Amino acid sequence: MGELGRKLGLDELSGGTSGIIKAILAEFIGNLLLNLFGCGACVNIAQGSGAAPDIVLIALAFGLSVFAIISAIGHVSGGHVNPAVTAGLASAGRVKPVRAVLYVIAQCAGAAAGSGLLKAFTPDRAAGSLGVTGLGTEVTALQGFGIEFCLGFVLVFVVCGVCDPNKPDSKATAPLAIGLTVTLGHLLAVDYTGSAMNPARSFGSAIVANVWNDHWVYWAGPVAGGVAAALLYVHGFSAPPPDNIT
Amino acid sequence: MGELGRKLGLDELSGGTSGIIKAILAEFIGNLLLNLFGCGACVNIAQGSGAAPDIVLIALAFGLSVFAIISAIGHVSGGHVNPAVTAGLASAGRVKPVRAVLYVIAQCAGAAAGSGLLKAFTPDRAAGSLGVTGLGTEVTALQGFGIEFCLGFVLVFVVCGVCDPNKPDSKATAPLAIGLTVTLGHLLAVDYTGSAMNPARSFGSAIVANVWNDHWVYWAGPVAGGVAAALLYVHGFSAPPPDNIT
Amino acid sequence: MGELGRKLGLDELSGGTSGIIKAILAEFIGNLLLNLFGCGACVNIAQGSGAAPDIVLIALAFGLSVFAIISAIGHVSGGHVNPAVTAGLASAGRVKPVRAVLYVIAQCAGAAAGSGLLKAFTPDRAAGSLGVTGLGTEVTALQGFGIEFCLGFVLVFVVCGVCDPNKPDSKATAPLAIGLTVTLGHLLAVDYTGSAMNPARSFGSAIVANVWNDHWVYWAGPVAGGVAAALLYVHGFSAPPPDNIT
Amino acid sequence: MGELGRKLGLDELSGGTSGIIKAILAEFIGNLLLNLFGCGACVNIAQGSGAAPDIVLIALAFGLSVFAIISAIGHVSGGHVNPAVTAGLASAGRVKPVRAVLYVIAQCAGAAAGSGLLKAFTPDRAAGSLGVTGLGTEVTALQGFGIEFCLGFVLVFVVCGVCDPNKPDSKATAPLAIGLTVTLGHLLAVDYTGSAMNPARSFGSAIVANVWNDHWVYWAGPVAGGVAAALLYVHGFSAPPPDNIT
Ligand SMILES: [Ca+2]
Ligand SMILES: [Ca+2]
Ligand SMILES: [Ca+2]
Ligand SMILES: [Ca+2]
Repeated sequence: MGELGRKLGLDELSGGTSGIIKAILAEFIGNLLLNLFGCGACVNIAQGSGAAPDIVLIALAFGLSVFAIISAIGHVSGGHVNPAVTAGLASAGRVKPVRAVLYVIAQCAGAAAGSGLLKAFTPDRAAGSLGVTGLGTEVTALQGFGIEFCLGFVLVFVVCGVCDPNKPDSKATAPLAIGLTVTLGHLLAVDYTGSAMNPARSFGSAIVANVWNDHWVYWAGPVAGGVAAALLYVHGFSAPPPDNIT
Repeated sequence: MGELGRKLGLDELSGGTSGIIKAILAEFIGNLLLNLFGCGACVNIAQGSGAAPDIVLIALAFGLSVFAIISAIGHVSGGHVNPAVTAGLASAGRVKPVRAVLYVIAQCAGAAAGSGLLKAFTPDRAAGSLGVTGLGTEVTALQGFGIEFCLGFVLVFVVCGVCDPNKPDSKATAPLAIGLTVTLGHLLAVDYTGSAMNPARSFGSAIVANVWNDHWVYWAGPVAGGVAAALLYVHGFSAPPPDNIT
Repeated sequence: MGELGRKLGLDELSGGTSGIIKAILAEFIGNLLLNLFGCGACVNIAQGSGAAPDIVLIALAFGLSVFAIISAIGHVSGGHVNPAVTAGLASAGRVKPVRAVLYVIAQCAGAAAGSGLLKAFTPDRAAGSLGVTGLGTEVTALQGFGIEFCLGFVLVFVVCGVCDPNKPDSKATAPLAIGLTVTLGHLLAVDYTGSAMNPARSFGSAIVANVWNDHWVYWAGPVAGGVAAALLYVHGFSAPPPDNIT
Repeated sequence: MGELGRKLGLDELSGGTSGIIKAILAEFIGNLLLNLFGCGACVNIAQGSGAAPDIVLIALAFGLSVFAIISAIGHVSGGHVNPAVTAGLASAGRVKPVRAVLYVIAQCAGAAAGSGLLKAFTPDRAAGSLGVTGLGTEVTALQGFGIEFCLGFVLVFVVCGVCDPNKPDSKATAPLAIGLTVTLGHLLAVDYTGSAMNPARSFGSAIVANVWNDHWVYWAGPVAGGVAAALLYVHGFSAPPPDNIT
């Protein structure tokens, strides 16, 4: 295998592939759980699909899903469960390209499976569009892109901060910090954009509901924001190695 | 005592029984507190039993109950307080059969005691069925089984992740992660199934209210989900021992 | 000073008294903040004193007050800010009688000061009875005693569990666990008893509002529950010293 | 450079200025995110600017913003993102005057940028005054000052407690404790004063909405409270060095 293959990360696929297969399975299950529990919390069985959303409930459900998922499989795959996180970390050189592409495929497949399961579990009357993301009243696609950019930015900014290898004190509470940042994003953005923060989560809902309005916003926004945050953090804010502390 | 006796865990009952008696008492008290505080938070004294449930309130109450209980008695019994957790850990070989059976009996007795106490503390007008679990409008028993399977799965998946002996960094926040996963399950499922996640919790409510509709769902779902999660985690995702980290 | 004086803790008052004076001041400030922020969150400026309470809001306010207070002064006084905690720990021999009495006086004085400040900050129209505790509709005094007993029990049970000197892993998250247990108690009990969990909190509200209905419930319940929990924990569930772990 | 220059902190500007430039940038970004996410959560796209505020939602948004920001850039600048915190720590000698002034300028500029971004992202119909702080009905300016004093006090009191260099056990959960104390302040004060706790947050909203009613309250209150808390903590409650523990 040549130099290019190593840079792309092809070496992870030859030889001991057990690690990457487990990681891909972990990302698949993670995104399945995220769409099942997060989008499922948007469903209102008692009042049906016309009821006003309870934003605090939805925000807690998505955030606590991420907290639970990272607690369970963070050590297996890194617990990205989000193409914006994967893209951000890849842009900063912390994930190799081949692994990144495989992760994104697994994340999208998992999200679709989670939304599909949710559809199977939900009476038609209450299902509505099962939490598909969409722009709020009078919110333009450009405004939506701006909001989703900021959601991807804050999420990956926090991921970089709490997973900085030179900040060991952050490790114990990292899953909680990442999860509650997802909650934060939803508290802001449920009524602006439906609050994706995560292209796979939007994709999974869209494919099951077959609703694709403004779908580009939910890929371009979080990925661009995530890449911006990762580059800013890595080049500007990384903690110095312990040796450098005076 | 023969080989079979050791596998079943009969040795825990002979000799130093103090440990297992304390553990059984701890599980009893834990489930008592869970049904008292969790189901009690479902009661609405001011508006009576016809009021719409506040799902965020209920979800926080069950989750923070579990967080409190594990904080208090986790070191005594492991802090299962849930037959689905006990069954999952038993299927993975981490709890011996005799101990598992005794735990489940203690959990059910504790839950019944907690629901009984709650009945004594609550004016009849407001009591309703004291938080008994039941399927939401148009939710079929099979859909309910699917939801409860997923609740048991995510709970035991997180328990395995945060209690993995090779992930010491997870230990400090483990009780919080487990508790907030219980909150997560309720955010999704209160209006689907009443959100048991826990057969003992359902049993305790059912015996005091004498309401047994679809009761099998609340045993089969969480136990099957918990066993599936434990087997998946132990065989697929366990963290390697520190020596194996390169 | 004789043997009796040492048992009562009189030695803490002679000699280096700086420590106990600081501790008493810390308890005073802690209970001041608890009644100011907790009871203040019960006030509804926009809708006035007839509005229905938002139980999640109130429960979070009391719980996060306790989390904040213990984070700030827990190392100075132990961060009891509650006569039920002080009584429980005294009954278990972990606080000496003289210190306990001084703490309770400081707690009650601080709570009264906090409720007084709140009265000064609040327009009369919205003040109502400033969060005074009272029994819910049709809740008997005996039922209220039972609920408050259980609130004191769960709080002190968790305090004992997370402050157990042989459970060092619990130390980092102890203030959070204690605070969220206070939240838990309020999620259950706001509409049963107003949810004191804490005689000083009730006393401070009662003296400023001059409302003393069923006031004994808010002393007898939490103190009896706290003492029961402390004795049960210390004699039944204390973690063994690390040497005893096999 | 003379003695005076060193006391003011001019030495931080000569020589290795990279550190302070990064810190100023970090504070700018932090306050940008705080006003964008916190004030943005006050916007109600679906119902427009006349809707009643959801105080729990708003309180969680501001608190989780602070948790996220400190998690991401706390190690770069200390994570003040609040002139009241900077003033408190400066009064206690823990931040030098020149750095403090530069921080406050960066915080105000960041907050204005965050509120400006929010305006760009929000349809006019729903924008209202974009979360500008103002006194509640019948709340006097003096009462508002009192409330904001207490908000600044509790925040800086907790900051001092969890960042005390002699309390290493507090470090892991410090960002969470500080964030949830911001949540606590908002649970109390949204309907009293709009709950600034933070002069920069108020300034950013005021300059974009061009609403300056009672603006002095939002500077004088939190700064005075923060300074009082820092002086009290440093002179009365600092933890002793580990050597002094017996
Ligand atoms: Ca629902
Ligand atoms: Ca209730
Ligand atoms: Ca209020
Ligand atoms: Ca909104």
